Amino acid sequence: MNSFPESINDLIDAFSRLPGIGRKTAQRLSFYVLKENDEQVSVFSDALKAVKSRIRNCSVCHGITENELCPICEDSKRDKNTLCIVENAQDVFVFERTNTFKGVYHVLGGVLSPLDGISPEDLNISTLMARVSEGMEVILATNSSVEGETTSLYLTKILEDKKIIVTRLARGLPVGGDLDYIDEATLVRAMEGRTSV
Amino acid sequence: MNSFPESINDLIDAFSRLPGIGRKTAQRLSFYVLKENDEQVSVFSDALKAVKSRIRNCSVCHGITENELCPICEDSKRDKNTLCIVENAQDVFVFERTNTFKGVYHVLGGVLSPLDGISPEDLNISTLMARVSEGMEVILATNSSVEGETTSLYLTKILEDKKIIVTRLARGLPVGGDLDYIDEATLVRAMEGRTSV
Repeated sequence: MNSFPESINDLIDAFSRLPGIGRKTAQRLSFYVLKENDEQVSVFSDALKAVKSRIRNCSVCHGITENELCPICEDSKRDKNTLCIVENAQDVFVFERTNTFKGVYHVLGGVLSPLDGISPEDLNISTLMARVSEGMEVILATNSSVEGETTSLYLTKILEDKKIIVTRLARGLPVGGDLDYIDEATLVRAMEGRTSV
Repeated sequence: MNSFPESINDLIDAFSRLPGIGRKTAQRLSFYVLKENDEQVSVFSDALKAVKSRIRNCSVCHGITENELCPICEDSKRDKNTLCIVENAQDVFVFERTNTFKGVYHVLGGVLSPLDGISPEDLNISTLMARVSEGMEVILATNSSVEGETTSLYLTKILEDKKIIVTRLARGLPVGGDLDYIDEATLVRAMEGRTSV
């Protein structure tokens, strides 16, 4: 008997499809599930299905929500004139956790990547253009990967003659960061962007 | 908005209950699930439930199976007079993968551990005693943890006057292991158990 029973194998397959989970870890997780009680496994199983059936994209910002609009777009106290553009829905929560940004978001749903065949039409750019209007501030908060920077440049270009303020997140030393461990590119940006005390 | 939609939170909770998966990883996995297509998620969800409903313990060796008997206990070609005693059902597959052991197994379902309140009655020991008979060989293949060794000692004791051969797995250098990296305890066992060439 070389292999696990079929149902265990199926579960191992399912776990190993997840990012960062190899075959061995998938085995360990599957045997752990086997030892959990019926109710816990049932809760897990239902949670998987619920996520797919209940989560949808906000019709304004494309962030995730269980309703037509996400809580941020629905909130009348948020400043609709400051638009923070992020790559993915997760990024919204990263900003929200800081409890300081009072504007709204726009989720691109990816970054431009000719290699992966992702062009402007594949991103939520037309809805972005429909949202921006004169006098608004648009904050480009894409990652500093090559694709993120390319996307930022592209957006800067197409937003150019809309009479809006386009800004980028500051690059510099992370708070608590040690100079010894900082990479040169970040240090150069920190020098360029130095502020008076 | 400080927190994820409820259904995402539920899934993050479910993932974080798994061993070795922290909150951050659980978030990453949940968002990955959100991007998978409906069918893949459905397969995953069903696999979780199937494992709990279809897997049971073999009525002879307590290994896992989808039938009354596991494929090993059912196999008439396996030597029923050589019994390998292992801690968990997973251990059976570790031995089976070597494709060399032709005997059968007995799964204890744990190890003796007074600290965790696990006494002989909590392990599959009564069914083990019912299986052993004069002339058999019993191989103690528990781990070399304190609990594993204690369990081995206990089993040696209660099998003592049954006129059966009790053996243990050899301890020594792992195949391909480098002397430089071997711990002292293993080296001592390797010396003690040296064989003539």
